Amino acid sequence: MNQIYNFSAGPAMLPRAVLEKMHSELLEYSNARASVMEISHRGVDFMALAQKCERDLRELMKIPDNYKVLFLQGGASAQFSMVPINLLRGKTKANYVHTGHWSKKAITEGRRYCEVNICTNSTDNKYTDIEDFSNWKIDSDGAYLHYTPNETIAGLEFDYIPEVEMPLVADMSSNILSREIEVAKFGVIYAGAQKNIGISGLTVVIVRQDLIGAPLAQQPILFDYATQANNDSMYNTPATYPWYVASRMFEWLKAKGGIGAMEKINQIKAQKLYKMIDESDFYSNPVTKKYRSRMNVPFLLADEKLNNLFLEKAAAQNLITLKGHRSVGGMRASIYNAMPEAGVDSLVNFMQAFEKENA
Amino acid sequence: MNQIYNFSAGPAMLPRAVLEKMHSELLEYSNARASVMEISHRGVDFMALAQKCERDLRELMKIPDNYKVLFLQGGASAQFSMVPINLLRGKTKANYVHTGHWSKKAITEGRRYCEVNICTNSTDNKYTDIEDFSNWKIDSDGAYLHYTPNETIAGLEFDYIPEVEMPLVADMSSNILSREIEVAKFGVIYAGAQKNIGISGLTVVIVRQDLIGAPLAQQPILFDYATQANNDSMYNTPATYPWYVASRMFEWLKAKGGIGAMEKINQIKAQKLYKMIDESDFYSNPVTKKYRSRMNVPFLLADEKLNNLFLEKAAAQNLITLKGHRSVGGMRASIYNAMPEAGVDSLVNFMQAFEKENA
Repeated sequence: MNQIYNFSAGPAMLPRAVLEKMHSELLEYSNARASVMEISHRGVDFMALAQKCERDLRELMKIPDNYKVLFLQGGASAQFSMVPINLLRGKTKANYVHTGHWSKKAITEGRRYCEVNICTNSTDNKYTDIEDFSNWKIDSDGAYLHYTPNETIAGLEFDYIPEVEMPLVADMSSNILSREIEVAKFGVIYAGAQKNIGISGLTVVIVRQDLIGAPLAQQPILFDYATQANNDSMYNTPATYPWYVASRMFEWLKAKGGIGAMEKINQIKAQKLYKMIDESDFYSNPVTKKYRSRMNVPFLLADEKLNNLFLEKAAAQNLITLKGHRSVGGMRASIYNAMPEAGVDSLVNFMQAFEKENA
Repeated sequence: MNQIYNFSAGPAMLPRAVLEKMHSELLEYSNARASVMEISHRGVDFMALAQKCERDLRELMKIPDNYKVLFLQGGASAQFSMVPINLLRGKTKANYVHTGHWSKKAITEGRRYCEVNICTNSTDNKYTDIEDFSNWKIDSDGAYLHYTPNETIAGLEFDYIPEVEMPLVADMSSNILSREIEVAKFGVIYAGAQKNIGISGLTVVIVRQDLIGAPLAQQPILFDYATQANNDSMYNTPATYPWYVASRMFEWLKAKGGIGAMEKINQIKAQKLYKMIDESDFYSNPVTKKYRSRMNVPFLLADEKLNNLFLEKAAAQNLITLKGHRSVGGMRASIYNAMPEAGVDSLVNFMQAFEKENA
């Protein structure tokens, strides 16, 4: 098989080395005499895998001891509920930052549980900019502040962590493990796995221990962080194969030099792509430069009638899934950790050649 | 690799043919030019898979058109909450049948949402028998009646479907697809996938349409059946790989002749094993004969000091994961659809030889 570069926003490309490892041990896992999918989550083989997986993630992200790491089901959408259920703790208000599609979904769900204060809102600039932090209107009575460090659709990413006097909650689904962050600045970090952690069906939640244990009454037992934390994420049968894939992804990331090394590559990849777009009159990206996403690079062609030809020719060059989200149009190149620099080089070369032929 | 017979209660053995199919297409799925794990759930390839998967299940179970089929996350434990959230519909009571460990978990969660009426309770007979239906105490004001057709730990299975004047709800996690049932008799059928449907991380829910759309207020949006039904189980990113495995399992089951053909094999497998146990003074099973599970066969050795030797020698004969649940002790052979008759033959032969050596 030729090397295919898959720019899907998620579920997304896996590193070739990880996929081949998964393939090589699919039929028989370690000493289990069965596939990893066929063994009990409570057996010695899977327990060892789960424990090593957590240790590796703790090492990669330097997670302090007063944080629990949970491996759950339900995606970010389940966390949109679990955050207010667990973090309101007697308060009736929470702060939300509205910088894109995913922020908005979190806000809509938050409103089912509490009064939502919107600190800042990027809808007026069509999610292409973030208001200066000094102008945000934060309600000091809010139980927490929720934001989305990277918005996958418009390609808008924070280049800093907001400093607030309440638990900071981040939906890091699309940029976790892509850059170094200080976990201690957060109350809760959560991320669906299908971008930088592995495959869909798993959600990693990193939660400060003091925020666990006082959920709203009459909510599903599974949505109480304590249920999961007290049972090592095995209150009920977890999604074992997605968890296994995460373990292989963390091992791969460690072998690559960890998050710091990956961040450098991610910077280079994004710079190459944005530089080419900025130097061209044929391609454009409307996002304020300092808030451009390193993970999701949307871009428009000068003539949208060329979109289909672009996608067709790109696919012929083994560059697939570049179509932009319908709300933005044009193209989107998602370049998570698994996308090698060579994939971006190949895309840049193709884009330049396409421009020459069609400008 | 030698043929291993894996008697795990779940996550459980997959049919060898399915596992090999999964292996053969792990790196590249159909025309997607990527692994099935790396493609968007909203893309043409995965949508086609999801639709075919549902069609196959509808055909296998003869599901009437007025039922929705959902492919969700969260396992049976999520359904323990979703059932009262969606089915109470203005009522404050529900009926529950207590015949084992899993019934009890459903009851505990049901009590968070409503007044639970226990229709019948098998704790006095240690989950080895089911009270005659004519003696059940059903509250006619209950919104629904919930039961567990097969209890995996004690190995207790209904040989009939209770006829009640309210929506009947069944946790079929451990016996779905193992025998023919008439779906129209149920309001809701749900099943975690890790026994007869595929791998963990997926839950199939079959729900009558008129029961959708009036959930309790202020509950997670994901736990409203309407959210899932109106979005073809793609309100948020589904567990795509477990869903794919289900599709391959359904194709395998169709090729095997469907549920009717499988039921015949399952009857033979269970009969062979129970017959040998009953004819022996060395092995025993305490469950009332007509309620013995075809899926999970727990048995005790006359001398429990031989348990470890039994497990060790069985494993040497490629018969693995036979240890019983700690609450029952002894052994448990889970013989779901994926366990071929030859696996049961091999177990019976081993058990007879072991008895001869150690009785």
